[in-house]
Amino acid sequence: MTDIYEKALKAHEQWRGKIDIHSKVEVNTKEDLSLAYTPGVAEPCRKIHETPNKIYDYTWKGNTVAVVTDGTAVLGLGDIGPKAALPVMEGKALLFKEFADIDAIPICLDTKDPKEIIQIIKAMAPTFGGINLEDISAPRCVEIERALIEELDIPVFHDDQHGTAIVTIAALINALKIVHKKVDEIKVVVSGTGAAGSAIIKMLHHFGVKHMIAFNIDGALSKKSARSLDFLEKEIADITNAEDFQGTMAEALVGADVFIGVSAPKLVSKEMVASMNKGAIVFPMANPESEIDYQDAIDAGAAVVGTGRSDHPNQINNVLAFPGLFKGAFVAGATKITENMKLAAAQAIAEIIPESELTSEYIIPSPFNQDLVEIIIQKVAEAAVTDGVIRQ
Amino acid sequence: MTDIYEKALKAHEQWRGKIDIHSKVEVNTKEDLSLAYTPGVAEPCRKIHETPNKIYDYTWKGNTVAVVTDGTAVLGLGDIGPKAALPVMEGKALLFKEFADIDAIPICLDTKDPKEIIQIIKAMAPTFGGINLEDISAPRCVEIERALIEELDIPVFHDDQHGTAIVTIAALINALKIVHKKVDEIKVVVSGTGAAGSAIIKMLHHFGVKHMIAFNIDGALSKKSARSLDFLEKEIADITNAEDFQGTMAEALVGADVFIGVSAPKLVSKEMVASMNKGAIVFPMANPESEIDYQDAIDAGAAVVGTGRSDHPNQINNVLAFPGLFKGAFVAGATKITENMKLAAAQAIAEIIPESELTSEYIIPSPFNQDLVEIIIQKVAEAAVTDGVIRQ
Repeated sequence: MTDIYEKALKAHEQWRGKIDIHSKVEVNTKEDLSLAYTPGVAEPCRKIHETPNKIYDYTWKGNTVAVVTDGTAVLGLGDIGPKAALPVMEGKALLFKEFADIDAIPICLDTKDPKEIIQIIKAMAPTFGGINLEDISAPRCVEIERALIEELDIPVFHDDQHGTAIVTIAALINALKIVHKKVDEIKVVVSGTGAAGSAIIKMLHHFGVKHMIAFNIDGALSKKSARSLDFLEKEIADITNAEDFQGTMAEALVGADVFIGVSAPKLVSKEMVASMNKGAIVFPMANPESEIDYQDAIDAGAAVVGTGRSDHPNQINNVLAFPGLFKGAFVAGATKITENMKLAAAQAIAEIIPESELTSEYIIPSPFNQDLVEIIIQKVAEAAVTDGVIRQ
Repeated sequence: MTDIYEKALKAHEQWRGKIDIHSKVEVNTKEDLSLAYTPGVAEPCRKIHETPNKIYDYTWKGNTVAVVTDGTAVLGLGDIGPKAALPVMEGKALLFKEFADIDAIPICLDTKDPKEIIQIIKAMAPTFGGINLEDISAPRCVEIERALIEELDIPVFHDDQHGTAIVTIAALINALKIVHKKVDEIKVVVSGTGAAGSAIIKMLHHFGVKHMIAFNIDGALSKKSARSLDFLEKEIADITNAEDFQGTMAEALVGADVFIGVSAPKLVSKEMVASMNKGAIVFPMANPESEIDYQDAIDAGAAVVGTGRSDHPNQINNVLAFPGLFKGAFVAGATKITENMKLAAAQAIAEIIPESELTSEYIIPSPFNQDLVEIIIQKVAEAAVTDGVIRQ
């Protein structure tokens, strides 16, 4: 890892920015100036002033995403602030461009107040066709995302929540095919109820999972537990743990079919995996060190294992989802990203691997799969039309 | 004009954005991903977290400007709002790129509250190396700019104020050479005390002009006048009209050496120009229709005439100043743009025309002059060093 860090540092110093602005219009003559700038530019301005949605015809808005963070939950680094978060936001913008030809702008905000973040993003929305929230700590991220979805007429998406959830569901869809289990019969244990965990749980619920128990640092979430829950934990408790289980995660895993970890290193032992049901699916995704090592999970008898790391099979990687998802929304002219659009993305990611090629070590396509983004775009755009969230 | 408007509209529809994002880094392999994104990106993040100014070494910040408007004073169109302003801001970003290879991002804000605009720009400043305020109405623009200059450690510049002032001073420097007059002896009448007018007056004052009278729609500004002045008008009254002149602009122009108009069409007659001192310099810059037509001013005996229009000689055009000015500030690592940096830019623009080539129809270089931006960069950077406004 030291080697990659040194290489990355040198590369960043050389790049001085992984993205830059490119001019699509040459300005070499007075006439060029008068078309792209004054006086000609006044005409598209007038048209947009008359009919605001013409902004999509005459500007970059329709293909542009703001990648917005407050720097409070950056990678595994935590609350490192808006300046130190900029290399990550630039990286995200780079991936938007490279994978889906979307113009993404990093915006690192020097405030942690959710109300202020909401107000700022609302105010800057005219410039952008979509908002990708990034690396904002939970449960603030959920509050911010909800308010913006409510108040803006462009897609708003917190990738740490839903990007992770989409790719996890994609992995689960294919893993279930391998172990021949049905979604409404499996018992799922989720470790971690932050941004990613809460979104995974909600998406699993929408996908049809009936039996889930969610754990965080304080134990199993339960409607009847004595401890006080925040609004997000309450929502999770409402759709999980119908039996009001209050034991340990080790106890919960006995006989479980699926483990999903978005929490912390080394919370799961080989014995715990061995105690799961036959055909166990284990996705320990904490990064860089996971809840249980890939090989330990295999050795303990797990049928399918996926992690967040690129050095093992089945990397559950957000980059599979967000570029195509946003592009699909843009192509359709969607005003928001619905549950069905997210599920369509998950299914597209799963189904790009033909069943004949599925193995326990190949449930997730490579992000460099040439067809992937196109198929996600198509399926997401169809779901947007079906859901009727298209701008007029 | 109809023709250029139709052409511009079609061009904008074809472009769908005059700028886009360009990726400087190819992402074709897992290793590319691990250098530009996780896990490698964590290392520049850590370095910036330790030493915030390293953000200039590892990101695009050092060459990046936010072009921010609230859409309240767009071109000659007025308060058309943030969406309709986007084509202009994209145009400005295009000019930043084409003329000085600066990465500029249009940000159109959906609020008109100066305090909120200040707060928003402060919050988004970590991403950007400079702030170019654009098309914000006066006197709000002055309030906003001052607060941001005070509170941010990056250059903040309202182009409608200072860009216009810099190029006007450049034009005046060369016009004075032609008519052989000295700056501290001339009498100047300025029509218009908004963003551009107030900045021109202050820059003229800094440049050494002793005798000025400023007019706006209510007449001559005077410290002793009965009517109430806003904060900006008071500041102008403090450095103009020492004699407390309270007559008309026609009366003020009798015997004046220079007329500068940034106000409204047709305020100045041929008779008024004819009443000026010998060797009169007349810059009627209202756009698209000026205070007096170019040819009328010539016919009335003006020695040098400059306008805002590209179809006459001596176009006083902001694009001459802002790209090189910001680039000079960036090259020097300046934390603000000082009066001397602006004056250095004006002098560089003036001096690029050798005295032997100066004529009454050639006092201003073309924006396409190949050497112009480089010379401005050099002079502005030198002034920044002299003024000691370099970041540590």
